[in-house]
Amino acid sequence: MYQFSFQNPTRIEFGLDKEKNIGTYMSQFATKKVLIVYGSERIKQSGLFDEVVQNLRDNHIEFIECGGVKSNPTLSKVKQGVMLAKQFGADSVLSIGGGSCLDSAKAIAAGSLYDGDVWDFFTGKKVTQALNIFSIMTLAATGSEMNNGGVITNEETKQKYPIHGFSLFPKVSVINPKLQATVSRDYLVYSAADIIAHSIEGYFTATVQPELINLQVEANIKTVIRTTEILLQNPDDLDARGELAWAATLALNGLTYLGTSGYSYPNHMIEHAMSAICDVPHGAGLSVVMPAWMTWRKDHNPKQFTRFAKEIFGLNTADEGIAALKNWFDKIGTPTTLKQLNISGQVLDDVIDNATQNAIDWRMDKTYNRQTIADIFALAK
Amino acid sequence: MYQFSFQNPTRIEFGLDKEKNIGTYMSQFATKKVLIVYGSERIKQSGLFDEVVQNLRDNHIEFIECGGVKSNPTLSKVKQGVMLAKQFGADSVLSIGGGSCLDSAKAIAAGSLYDGDVWDFFTGKKVTQALNIFSIMTLAATGSEMNNGGVITNEETKQKYPIHGFSLFPKVSVINPKLQATVSRDYLVYSAADIIAHSIEGYFTATVQPELINLQVEANIKTVIRTTEILLQNPDDLDARGELAWAATLALNGLTYLGTSGYSYPNHMIEHAMSAICDVPHGAGLSVVMPAWMTWRKDHNPKQFTRFAKEIFGLNTADEGIAALKNWFDKIGTPTTLKQLNISGQVLDDVIDNATQNAIDWRMDKTYNRQTIADIFALAK
Repeated sequence: MYQFSFQNPTRIEFGLDKEKNIGTYMSQFATKKVLIVYGSERIKQSGLFDEVVQNLRDNHIEFIECGGVKSNPTLSKVKQGVMLAKQFGADSVLSIGGGSCLDSAKAIAAGSLYDGDVWDFFTGKKVTQALNIFSIMTLAATGSEMNNGGVITNEETKQKYPIHGFSLFPKVSVINPKLQATVSRDYLVYSAADIIAHSIEGYFTATVQPELINLQVEANIKTVIRTTEILLQNPDDLDARGELAWAATLALNGLTYLGTSGYSYPNHMIEHAMSAICDVPHGAGLSVVMPAWMTWRKDHNPKQFTRFAKEIFGLNTADEGIAALKNWFDKIGTPTTLKQLNISGQVLDDVIDNATQNAIDWRMDKTYNRQTIADIFALAK
Repeated sequence: MYQFSFQNPTRIEFGLDKEKNIGTYMSQFATKKVLIVYGSERIKQSGLFDEVVQNLRDNHIEFIECGGVKSNPTLSKVKQGVMLAKQFGADSVLSIGGGSCLDSAKAIAAGSLYDGDVWDFFTGKKVTQALNIFSIMTLAATGSEMNNGGVITNEETKQKYPIHGFSLFPKVSVINPKLQATVSRDYLVYSAADIIAHSIEGYFTATVQPELINLQVEANIKTVIRTTEILLQNPDDLDARGELAWAATLALNGLTYLGTSGYSYPNHMIEHAMSAICDVPHGAGLSVVMPAWMTWRKDHNPKQFTRFAKEIFGLNTADEGIAALKNWFDKIGTPTTLKQLNISGQVLDDVIDNATQNAIDWRMDKTYNRQTIADIFALAK
């Protein structure tokens, strides 16, 4: 096993009705003024917003709102949130939504204690402090609820880039499976693809990968496949909903990368270009990229790709495993071809250019260049 | 999945030479005066103690020593440590050793900020504060390095009881597989039994046990079996040593109990009586208790016992799985019968009495009484 440092201080409050205590949890961190970050107005129609606000009031916590966060969250919204938080004198941010909301909230939390341009944190500046971050997750996918990162799209420069920093771990994240039961069928299957992507990046790219970590990653992937199939039949199965949510958290809270080394995130690097240029839902982009990337990559690490086929699908060869994953994506209804996303011609060229720049900015190994990225996309037509 | 709260703030520093930075890590918590808790003088002969002390000096941290902690650590030693820490004005404790040292250090850390008898914390008093706790693990087994508990034996009352509290999470724990490579063959196999025991308690007793948790527990058990067999052949295989150490941490840092409910620790409850009365090494006692308890228990949860047989050993029935575990314990050389531990006659009666009292004090379900505990021991003759 390779050496590592690990600390994950986030407190998880998992279960029914936990969101009704959010103000109580926040008051344990001396919260007085909070900016609430959310997406659509659905959280108001459902009554969730009122329940949260009631508990904030019970705990004498003042709040203002920053709604309208979209999938593939934008820098302009983050800047709006930073301005609001500064004007209000917020000491905390509360995200009510999925990963897009929480990633925005994290960037706002960092930007609110910084005089310069918040985008600096996405281009090299270290995050050293942030407002306290809290979250109520209405979608399971990103793992943002228990990690110290986020991803934001700069609409002007067409860059979809990450931010990291120890102070970006949420203080408390609420995961109530019931709040996630109203997720659309599309976003359920995109989420499944996203969690599998988080799982396989390290699994297939690491040069050192302990067997214990392999087993943990496979446990997560098996859980995603099993619970997604249950939820497509019965969206209200809260046990399956809970397991899917927890697999999502475990896939990117650091644990499944411990003791590994030499890994990278090529599928994410490529997909971010699709989201940045075409505003494709992240999970939908990933389910297109993954089978193509796996086909392109399999001969670099044939043992691990064969293992994947056997452990996840009970099959014998790397090719069979990749085909089985693609078939499974087709079966659940998340895209597997560029055609399904209407990406071709000049748009595809722009995506390839964008991904090529990502490869440089993310310091990917030299195998990723304009030609090889085009080769990978050619396998996804 | 059942509802839960989870937070584990311990920082793990894993890898070669990490112990040489312990003073640097401690200074990040403003440490000025530390009580060093350890077992035998071997850490001085090996040079480990000097290396640690050098880094403490480099960081201007004063220290005093409390050596002589034994396996099945005692209340009298804890009381000595509390006295020393108070006299010295320690702000921290540093354990250099295995779980016995760290458990003692935790009790000392709690007792040093308390005017009453430290045993109060083992009989119901809540731990609300403690000195900062740091550890360098020279043995992988207890999981104490990343949890908030410990176990101490009161020699006078013959009670081996636990202490818990959020402030008992170590601030930083160092796991350097190389420091664990000199563990004796006996303690290697006892540790394997201990980790498996931590894994199966929840696995076999929980009334709610999510499939994802099953998979994680099985990943840990498979890792223990595989790495122990490697290490018996080659004690210096640091990859295997590291994986075993990390499996030990994961088996009792809370993760493999999340979303489960209704579990208990019957094997530990019974074994603690053996350690309390006969000073049996904890892991050696557990390898005797487990096959007996499993045989006694299997019909309560036949599906899970059959699953264990299949997943861990590729066998078909609960009985075959239990026999395979017992055979594996025999093969690696950890005891499986009371006879091997010389426990019989009046001593066995005393052990049964002690375990019966544990069942009451631990609020075990009513199936555990003097008769059933005797029945379980009868299966271990």
